[in-house]
Amino acid sequence: MADINLQEIHDFLISIAKKAGDMITSARPSTAVSGSKKNSADLVTETDQAVEKMVSTSLKEKYPNYSFMGEETYQPGDKLTSNPTFIVDPIDGTTNFVHAYPYVSISLGFAIDHVPTVGVVYNPFTNTLYSGIKGKGSFLTDATHNHARLPLREPEPLTGLDKCVVAMEWGSDRSGNDYNVKVDTFRKLCASKEDGGAMVHGLRSFGSAALNLCGVASGSLDAYWEAGCWAWDVCAGWVILREAGGIVVDANKGNWEPRIEERRYLAVRKGDGQKELVEELWGHVCGILEVGV
Amino acid sequence: MADINLQEIHDFLISIAKKAGDMITSARPSTAVSGSKKNSADLVTETDQAVEKMVSTSLKEKYPNYSFMGEETYQPGDKLTSNPTFIVDPIDGTTNFVHAYPYVSISLGFAIDHVPTVGVVYNPFTNTLYSGIKGKGSFLTDATHNHARLPLREPEPLTGLDKCVVAMEWGSDRSGNDYNVKVDTFRKLCASKEDGGAMVHGLRSFGSAALNLCGVASGSLDAYWEAGCWAWDVCAGWVILREAGGIVVDANKGNWEPRIEERRYLAVRKGDGQKELVEELWGHVCGILEVGV
Repeated sequence: MADINLQEIHDFLISIAKKAGDMITSARPSTAVSGSKKNSADLVTETDQAVEKMVSTSLKEKYPNYSFMGEETYQPGDKLTSNPTFIVDPIDGTTNFVHAYPYVSISLGFAIDHVPTVGVVYNPFTNTLYSGIKGKGSFLTDATHNHARLPLREPEPLTGLDKCVVAMEWGSDRSGNDYNVKVDTFRKLCASKEDGGAMVHGLRSFGSAALNLCGVASGSLDAYWEAGCWAWDVCAGWVILREAGGIVVDANKGNWEPRIEERRYLAVRKGDGQKELVEELWGHVCGILEVGV
Repeated sequence: MADINLQEIHDFLISIAKKAGDMITSARPSTAVSGSKKNSADLVTETDQAVEKMVSTSLKEKYPNYSFMGEETYQPGDKLTSNPTFIVDPIDGTTNFVHAYPYVSISLGFAIDHVPTVGVVYNPFTNTLYSGIKGKGSFLTDATHNHARLPLREPEPLTGLDKCVVAMEWGSDRSGNDYNVKVDTFRKLCASKEDGGAMVHGLRSFGSAALNLCGVASGSLDAYWEAGCWAWDVCAGWVILREAGGIVVDANKGNWEPRIEERRYLAVRKGDGQKELVEELWGHVCGILEVGV
């Protein structure tokens, strides 16, 4: 695989992201015309499908030997192989998109032998572009940054959850073990120390896993604890975060090296005390998440 | 009070917001140097205090007969009077500010006889300005909108919470009755209908009450349920929301006309079915909030 031109792939993914961005910002979605998948909170629109079609067609034309995994064409049982694979979410934050809330991205990842290797995350509403290549760093370009290296500032040490802003999402699975583990864990992360909680500075839910990972990469979010999202939600952001000095571990205690398809993730930003923060957060997880197991 | 020039006040508040914006974006806060008030999650920085000083000085010089209420100079027991009063939060979203997350605003409100009358909410990091005057509408100016009237699109009918994105915040009170009521209510709003929940499209926590109200005004957020924030967090956003066809009621069931200082709020965007949505959401509140009572 030494002959793969990662810079070329990176640049091509950015050109696709911009083209997709035009499709996304010119669409006029509504809750009335959106469809749903497994339940009424798992939304899909014609734009998700049209963007994925454009992306997969473009990639297969230019890179016919590489595999493709996309949210809208995934079938249960599909497995990521060691072949170079594009892992794509055409719209991450579909619920925000349907409601015209501009926290939406296209997430274009590329993995080789199961390792996230190139990542492009682009929010076309704010013209915010995050990208990274394994071993080459990750960068942000937006209204006030021009290819600024991540993280955006020298990171403060991670001295404990009580100084942290933690992102999490409610997701679309709304009953059963994992819903209870999630909500109990949110409650405990936020609760006062007198009540056994972690007393985080704040909990945030913005509605896009890919942008959350980029927020951790930039250093504004200290951590992001997630259960239930998919490889296409995290592959691109994973590269961007790791190149910014961050790490991704399992949302369940004990696994320091989750697979891209693990569906349970804990991302922590760069900073001294990273591993201790993982251990502290794991200590507040109220049960064992079953998703992905 | 018929001689009060609301347009002049509106324009002056915008000029102050811009000046404050320069102070906010040029500051370099950190978790290490921020202070705290009632507990470790209730943050304040030198910038909050310097901005409030600048704002109050400017307003007292130009409008010496009007009253002033600001977050950083408020004393327990201070009461809003019927005198025209500026109600100011120098930095709404201080936790985001400390962590360099660009979802931060200055909130400048003006009330006459307890009625929110002029509102300016400005995010200096994204150069996003919301403003409104009672009876004159509310507007958005940002990178892609030039004095666009709110809401930004013709609102879809509010057919039920299961089509809604609802904003809420964890706040800094992390134990006791209200913390339990809040977390139980979050859980129920999100839970599946089979489990007695409302199965909302999504729950969001962005970390700024003023910007949340503006999100409801713009129509991207359908509702915002809040307990624990203050008059200065909501006065400006309230004008902007009401002028965009939205309403603010109590977070506890039954009170359709809360005071600015109620500290419990439920905001709902413009749209047919607004009152039915309030009733539906009240039906999911798990207990009685004590804050402000």
